[in-house]
This record gives sequence, C-alpha cells and structure tokens, in this order.
Amino acid sequence: MDKPFQTYDDTSNPATVASRLAALRAELAKRGLDGFVVPHSDQHMGEYLPPHAERLAWLTSFTGSAGAAVVLKDKAAIFVDGRYTLQVRTQTDTSLFEPRDLVAEGPQGWIPDNLPKGAKLGYDPWLHTQHGVMHLKAAVEKAGGTLVAVESNPIDAVWTDHPAPPQTPAKPHALNLAGQQSEAKRLTLADGLKKAGAEAAVITLADSVCWLLNIRGHDVPHTPFTLAFAIAHADGSADLFVDPAKRSPELLTHLGNSVRVQDPGAFTAALDGMKGKSVLVDPSTAASAIFDRLGKAGAKIRQGSDPCQLPKACKNPAEIEGMRKAHIRDGAALARYLAWFEANAAAGELTEIQAAETLEGFRRATGVLSDVSFDTISGAGSNGAIVHYRVTRSTNRTIRPNEMFLLDSGAQYPDGTTDVTRTIMVGEATAEMRDRFTRVLKGHIALATVRFPDGTIGMQLDSFARRPLWEAGLDYDHGTGHGVGSYLSVHEGPQNISKRPVMQALKPGMICSNEPGFYKAGAFGIRIENLIVVTEPEDLGGERPMMGFETITLVPIDLNLVESSLLTDAERGWLNLYHARVGDVIGPLVDDDTRKWLDRATRAI
Amino acid sequence: MDKPFQTYDDTSNPATVASRLAALRAELAKRGLDGFVVPHSDQHMGEYLPPHAERLAWLTSFTGSAGAAVVLKDKAAIFVDGRYTLQVRTQTDTSLFEPRDLVAEGPQGWIPDNLPKGAKLGYDPWLHTQHGVMHLKAAVEKAGGTLVAVESNPIDAVWTDHPAPPQTPAKPHALNLAGQQSEAKRLTLADGLKKAGAEAAVITLADSVCWLLNIRGHDVPHTPFTLAFAIAHADGSADLFVDPAKRSPELLTHLGNSVRVQDPGAFTAALDGMKGKSVLVDPSTAASAIFDRLGKAGAKIRQGSDPCQLPKACKNPAEIEGMRKAHIRDGAALARYLAWFEANAAAGELTEIQAAETLEGFRRATGVLSDVSFDTISGAGSNGAIVHYRVTRSTNRTIRPNEMFLLDSGAQYPDGTTDVTRTIMVGEATAEMRDRFTRVLKGHIALATVRFPDGTIGMQLDSFARRPLWEAGLDYDHGTGHGVGSYLSVHEGPQNISKRPVMQALKPGMICSNEPGFYKAGAFGIRIENLIVVTEPEDLGGERPMMGFETITLVPIDLNLVESSLLTDAERGWLNLYHARVGDVIGPLVDDDTRKWLDRATRAI
Repeated sequence: MDKPFQTYDDTSNPATVASRLAALRAELAKRGLDGFVVPHSDQHMGEYLPPHAERLAWLTSFTGSAGAAVVLKDKAAIFVDGRYTLQVRTQTDTSLFEPRDLVAEGPQGWIPDNLPKGAKLGYDPWLHTQHGVMHLKAAVEKAGGTLVAVESNPIDAVWTDHPAPPQTPAKPHALNLAGQQSEAKRLTLADGLKKAGAEAAVITLADSVCWLLNIRGHDVPHTPFTLAFAIAHADGSADLFVDPAKRSPELLTHLGNSVRVQDPGAFTAALDGMKGKSVLVDPSTAASAIFDRLGKAGAKIRQGSDPCQLPKACKNPAEIEGMRKAHIRDGAALARYLAWFEANAAAGELTEIQAAETLEGFRRATGVLSDVSFDTISGAGSNGAIVHYRVTRSTNRTIRPNEMFLLDSGAQYPDGTTDVTRTIMVGEATAEMRDRFTRVLKGHIALATVRFPDGTIGMQLDSFARRPLWEAGLDYDHGTGHGVGSYLSVHEGPQNISKRPVMQALKPGMICSNEPGFYKAGAFGIRIENLIVVTEPEDLGGERPMMGFETITLVPIDLNLVESSLLTDAERGWLNLYHARVGDVIGPLVDDDTRKWLDRATRAI
Repeated sequence: MDKPFQTYDDTSNPATVASRLAALRAELAKRGLDGFVVPHSDQHMGEYLPPHAERLAWLTSFTGSAGAAVVLKDKAAIFVDGRYTLQVRTQTDTSLFEPRDLVAEGPQGWIPDNLPKGAKLGYDPWLHTQHGVMHLKAAVEKAGGTLVAVESNPIDAVWTDHPAPPQTPAKPHALNLAGQQSEAKRLTLADGLKKAGAEAAVITLADSVCWLLNIRGHDVPHTPFTLAFAIAHADGSADLFVDPAKRSPELLTHLGNSVRVQDPGAFTAALDGMKGKSVLVDPSTAASAIFDRLGKAGAKIRQGSDPCQLPKACKNPAEIEGMRKAHIRDGAALARYLAWFEANAAAGELTEIQAAETLEGFRRATGVLSDVSFDTISGAGSNGAIVHYRVTRSTNRTIRPNEMFLLDSGAQYPDGTTDVTRTIMVGEATAEMRDRFTRVLKGHIALATVRFPDGTIGMQLDSFARRPLWEAGLDYDHGTGHGVGSYLSVHEGPQNISKRPVMQALKPGMICSNEPGFYKAGAFGIRIENLIVVTEPEDLGGERPMMGFETITLVPIDLNLVESSLLTDAERGWLNLYHARVGDVIGPLVDDDTRKWLDRATRAI
C-alpha cells in the first residue's frame, strides 16, 4: 500500500523546547538582538507549510495551523487563537512560553507591555507581510524599542537537522481541467496592469503562481502547490523563479517562450533591477522583504490586491465541470464509506483513526486521488465539539453507541478539490441532539437557497445560516463559508461568508463552503458542510437578475438526526429534493449493498 | 392657527443662479482663488441647516438634503446622489452647473480631471470634516493644484440678504425625560477621557452638545437643536459656547457651576489655548478648522469617535419610556388621521398637500407637538416611487382611486421623536401591488422578530428584510434602518441597518427604524416603517443570551394590501398580534368613529 496522506503521530514533545529556546537566545545574543518574532508562515504566506518552514513548531513544539511566538531575553510568549487554547498547553512547555490570545492581543498587543525600552527586536522580513510589519513596528515603537530586519533567520542557524526545501516536480495542469491557457490569463492580467498604470506585478502566493501558469506540484502536504515566485509583466510575459530540480522538459514546453524560467536566487536580483518601474505588490499577502528591496531599488511600488486572486476565485466552465465531476466521484466514495460505517460502527469498537484511515482508503480506491485536501477531522462524542480537532494516537478513542460522530474531510483530485462534513448518529439520538442538528440543517438550507443581487458580500448572507440557532440562544464560533480552489488550496480568498466584513462581492463561479455547526462542549459537535457555486444572475420575473448557489456536494445528510416537525414544508422539500438528486446521481455508481444503504439514507421524509 | 411646521412653497428659482454665480466668481478673483468648493453643511455637520448656512441652495437653487458644488473660473459642477438626479435638473441652471454623481464621483473624483494645473482651489475649513479635507487635498494634488483654506466664506461676502444665525432660546431638557443628569453624563465621559489618556474632548455635533448638557432649542427646522460647540474636560466640567441671545437665567441655573458658558467667539480662542493638552476630536464629524487651530496651538490631537455618540444612541429607561409614550400619542393621532383619510380619499379629490397638512393638524391636536421630525413625504401613485419625494405646490396632485398612497412622517414631542411610514390603498389593489406589499411586509416582520448575539452589526441583519424581495428579483436602494434620537435628530448614528459595513454593534436601548420598501418607477411606491428598540440580552434556553427588537410604533398596516396566502403562519401570527396590540393600546384613546375604523383596520386575518 502507498504511504498514507494523513498520519496520526504525535509529533509534539514539550521536552525539546528548553534546549531549542536556549540555542535561539544564544544565537540572538551573538547577533546583538534582544528578541525575535516567530510567525507561522513561509515566504509565500501559505496556510500549509513545507517542513523546513515549520520554525514555530520546531521551537515551541506547538503544531497548530496558526500562531506566533515572541522570544525575549528573559521571557517568551506564544499566541494562539480560540481553537488552540487547550492544545497549546499540552504541546509546548508553558513554563517557557506563556500562552496568550492571538486575536485579542497578538504580538502587537503584547510587545508594548513587555519589550524593554531601547531593546532591538528582530524579525525575518520574508515571513511577515508588509501590513504585518507595520503593526509590529508600531508596537515596538510604543515600547521605545527598535524593530530590526534580520538578513538570515536565526532559527535556521541553530536548527541542527533542518530539512531541505521541498523539490517535488512542477507539472503542467492540463488545459481541459484549467479551462484557459496560461497565456490568455496573462494577457488579461496584463490588460489590468496597463489600466492601472503598472508595468509588472510580483506574484507571491503559491496558488496564484500555480493558477497563472497552469502548474501544480506537491511541495506542501494536502495542497498541490509548487512553491515559487513569479513576476507578471504588462506585455503578457512572466518570470518564474523555480528550483532547477523541479523542472522537466515537459514543464518548459508547457510554459513556452514567454515565460522566462529562472533559479529562485534570481528573484531578489530581479526585484533589485526594477528601478523606475511601476510594480504592483499586495501588502496584505506579499513578504515585507519584497517591499524593502523594491523600495531600495527605486521601483515605484503600487499597493493593490494580488491580481490573480479574483479571476482564480471565479471558476470558468471547465473548472466548474471538473469540480462537479470530482464531487460525484467523491460522493460515491463517501456513500461506500458511510454504508461501511453504518455496518461497522454499531458494535462500538471503531476508533477515530480507523474511521479516518478507512475513508482515505475508499477515496484512494477511485484511482485518481492525489491527496486528501486537509487532515480529516474525525471526532466522536465530545471530540466532535472541538472545532478543529485533529485525531492523533494519543487522543484517539472509540466511537461509542449513542454518540454523534463528526467527520470533516476532503480530497484533491486533478479535476477538483472537495471538502465535506457529515455528522452521523451512532445509535439513538436524544431530543436535544435532533433539535440542534435540525437547526443547523435549517441554517444550511437557508444559505443554500438564498437569492441575492450583484454586489452582495458574504457577511450579508452569513446570518441566514445562524438564525435558527440564534432563535434558541445558540451560535457557532467559526465562519459559515470559505472559498475553495480548483485542485488548489481548500481555503482560498478573496470571498468569505462569515461575521467578518470581507468586502469582496460574491461573483458567478466562486465556490464556497456552506458549513454551519453547533458545538456543545464536552458532549457533541454538529456540522453540515456542502460546497456551493455562485450561479449566473438569473431573471426571477422581477426587475433585477439574482444570483444564487448550486450545491455540488452529493452526500446523504443523516435522517436519524432530523426532527421533521421543526422543518417548514419548503425546507423538507429542499431536503427531499437534495436526497433524490444524491440517489439519482450516486446510486448508479456504487455496489448493490451501498445502493441499498443509499436508498434508505436518501428516502423522502 | 400657528404657523405650520411644514411649508410647500417652491423656494427654488433657476433664474437666480447666473447672477449669484457671477458674483461669487468675481469675489474669488478678488481673493486670488481659481475656484471654490461649496458643500451642503454648517459648522456642526448637521443634516438640517439653519437658513444662513444654506449656501449651496442660495448659489445653485438646489434644495436637496445632500450635495456639493465646485465652482471654477470657466465651469461649475453640482454633485447629487441618486435621490436627486431628477430634482436637480429642474432646480438649478444646468447650463451653469453640470449635474454629476455625488457618490460614484463626487468633488474628489471630478477635480483631478477638471482643475487646471497650478490652480488654487478654496474651501471653508469650518464646513468640511478633517476626513473630507483629506480627500479634497488628494484630489487637488492629483490635478497639480493647491487647496487653500479661506479665512471667511466668499459666498457670505456676496450674499446680499444673508440671514442672521438662528437665536432661538436654549432650554433645559427635563430630567424625567432625559433620564440622567448632565453631570452624571459628563463624569462618565470624563472617565473615558482619562482611560484614553486625554484631557478634553471637543464636541462639535449639535445633538451631542444638546444630549451632554440636557438642553434643546429650535435653531434648525424639525430638529430641536441648539447650535453650539462644547469642550468636555477630564474633570467632568465643560465649556459651552453659545450665543448670549439664547441664554436665560433658567438655562444658567440648569447648567450649574461646572459648565462655563461663553460666547461663540471664545470657542476659537479656547482651541488656541490648548497648547500641550491631549484633546480628543472626531475626524469624521468635526470641522477641519478645529484640527488646524489645535495643530497650530500645539495641542496633542487624539483622533477618535465623538464620545457622546454611543451613550446617546443607547437610550436609558426614561428615554425609552418617553419614546413609548410619544409613540402611543402619535399612534392615536395617526389612527384618527387614517380614519379621516379612508372617509375622504375615496372621492379622489384629496391632494398630497392636503393629506400632509391634515396629518400635521391631527398631530398638533395632541397639544404637545413641538415640530414635525422631517418634511412629510406624501406621495400618490408614481410620486410614491420617488424615494425622497417632497411635495411642493408645483408637484402637488390629487390622490386618485385605485392608487397607492405613501406617507412617511414623524413628530417631535418633548418625550420622544417618531418616524413612521404607511402605504395605503385607495380603492382596489392589483395582484402585483398585493404581492409586492406582502413581500415588503414579510421583510419587515423578519427584521422585527430576529434574535441576535452581542457584537452583531446592522449589516448582518439587513438582508432579512430584503430576502422576500430578492426571491422575486426585486430590491430597494436605501437602507433598512437608521438610528433615531430621543427628542433629537430623526437620523442619528452610530448604528445603521443597511448594506453598508457600519461597524457599530447594536446595543440594548438603541432605537432604529425598520423600513423595507419597494418602488416601481412611474407606478407606485411601498414602504412599511416602524421604530424598533434593541432589547436587553435574554435567555432563550440556550447558551448565549440574545438581543432582539421591541416594536414601538403602533399604527395599523393596511390589510387591503396583504396577500394572506403569501404569509407563513408565524408571519400571520405576528401581524395579528401586532394589530391586536395596536387596537388594545390605541383604541381607548380615540373617538368612537376612529375606534370603529380601528377595529376594522386591526382585525385578525
């Protein structure tokens, strides 16, 4: 069997923290620094990091997907958000790193009260955005200190077995899947640059580079990125800075003559050579070091959004078709899995890890799985109430009868990325469980069926998903929908459906998740997640065409948890229609036993 | 009979524009200026202006409630928003002032393309906020010109019969209505200043000054303001700068020893004397001139929100009780009016002006009306589709059978401010009218009944009011809810329920309007407006207390326009309960004939 995409080992060991922290402090002293900021990021500001960029985890032993640390001479703090307040205490040595709130305080809130006057605080300008450095600088100046950019990262100097940067091959992403030639994308981008009076744009997000040049790789877990920088020019040409080990003749042919392929080291030289040029850079996603170098070089910096983000988010017909196919394939795998689960879970002996491993196996059996799209959240009972639970060998437990089981998982297929959550009842649900589940379902349906005019942002729709919970004095502390890439990152911008005022309007072709939930701490967790595509504006018989959502995830919703009397006729109608569609589309693709399970699971109520 | 609060004369005369514009241009030339910006504002940035501050109307003859003009040597432009695109063309001389879009373009969008290089553009720093001047300055610099603050307004120099500033008496606002002594308000404000490290705050909004010192006046139409500046200090004392003609012994006794009353001219001297002091000023509401003077004086300016805005918006129990009483009184007046209207409109001879005048009469008959809270919008048929229609002698027309009549009006009573819109069918409604009205009603009910957690902003609730329209391909181009003052401005901040991301969370005691609508151009307009109060967080049996809204407007909603089959049981239940409440509360307060009408108008459906 192939190496599994997801592993369950506990990589964290608080005992390593003391010596590593001491080594870093010695290195800082050698450099004349009084402290250092350690973010969770790489040069591309990605969510998933390659092993060599896991500096925060190496130093603190904390393995969460977001966080930061500040190390001073006599104290150190680690900042995590609400998802990780418990986890950080088991993973790091809290006598060395004081856990603090990343959102309410963050390094910029902590520094003014803790950095000694006159102190020099170091930071790696390749690991912070321009906006991030602005906030850090303000905080350091409040403390009467100085923020100092380091030439090389001091952690790398003391990290003895530092892994090498990834060198997986960069491969062309086929035109029938991408839907548009890279050249056409670059010419459109070039038009935008000319209109904005810019001569070039620095593209720093790995998914933007991969989208623009129609390439994919395996440099980070779960997301088919090639890690590379690019510069797009107003004549439609581009420079791609990528490790020679990742190149192949096939890749070079694919890129063609108007993409100049260079070594990664040439990127800084290219920035240094942009004197007098008008260059677009995104201050909220590009490393501060890029601004520093362009500034020194005498380039005219134009701050603006990464020009790949919006066209990448608005999927073209080929990408949408690919996503639909990927979801049908994934729906069949999940139907087989859920039928297996029903047959095997009742005995009360399945563990969370077995449940996740088996799901990966059913997806592998499709023959085209290239990765899972994130570490499966496989949480039984109270573990389901931990919003970003990730099972490890030490937290693993059996799924017991009369418990809910929350399963949030996804796949990377070359034609599309999936992300689906189902909450399954093992045994008998209590009235409370059914009430809560049905409220979450009502919210899910409210969002799935909404119509809205041009210019509407996600924040304006988010409350539809929450209202049935609000009416019972309940809510959930996460967003309702994130953008999803097309065989790219399972979390992508610029759109967002949440309580946050993300001002990007929803546009046709954007793919979002629809995932309201409810979590009763210590008891159970509920989430119902489908992916939805923003539809073209449609004439509804009024004066203004309205957009809406097409649901593309096709997996039964557990009827054992639905309290039918709480549904309106329209809601029941939606559920029955959805299940009929799941049965019609998925039924022909599965074996007889699964088919029998599917017929029951998708029955009209 | 007393002088009516609302007048219907056409004050606009395009023939005056040419000579006034010529006079202004001559004055500008004398001062060495190449142009001048004319906003619609006074020194307090209020919505309603005293006559001497109506400089935009004097110059351009345009009388809308928002707008601006820019006068250059050889051209001039007037900027209005979507409400006024038709009106401006009838009111001004468009051969002299080119009408432009205030929102999409505005002076800051127009100046870069039209101001000659090297030109000096004047502005009156007392009539623009600090934020406004920032935008103007950026635009002028783009054009290669210079923005110049004038010492005195050049329009005043050529306005031959310039009215004097208003001098109505400033009167104490009784404690039983205000609910809190001014001293207590000032001490709380002072605590906030101390916490923010500020020694004083400059209070420039007239309603903030009136709220803080518990005073009222009649300096502007329809809003019981005294126009005055104040400075609040961190020791709880205050300086009030108010015209001697407005003072009375009663006022001075009311203000007490810790409010130093000074002449308006002393205000600038007080700013000039703040060297080294840390002073809070609101850059989005305070005149730029105040920043200029404080800067020159060497004060430490702290930019922040006007510290009266939030406590003013969160009404205390006495204010809420007063608002409830005012709405019961107003509801009785409206019931009498609507009964009269039903008896008299069918003949098809009532005019829009008669309808508005009669309504003012019924409100006057309460004996405690101190003003209408804005010019009544009295629009029949297609006039109802003009969102901010204001009837004048030239637009006045009869309300014909089988037309809808839209009536948006309000009252200023000493215990509270009202604002209510009802749409009334004269004769038979078409199926389309009933469908549209019922959708607006469904949206109104959806907002009236929503529950929401702490931290929710209006934008998150706005879509509930629109969804029933969106589902039919319809929408409305105005906000759903504005804040309402307590015997103060009928439009107040900082909260807002609309598509705009106004980030102020809704807090208990805030009063908002709930006014979805629908407008079919050339045919009819629908709006249903009640005022709603944010309730205290309440335990709904879940984990988080939830706020909601209490509806305080008590006026029947026209059942002739309700298509009952479009309502859910819950919506019908809300309407019947609301009408039962209107009948119970208002019924005992009206004459027998009105009572009979009310019984019919509030019958259960």
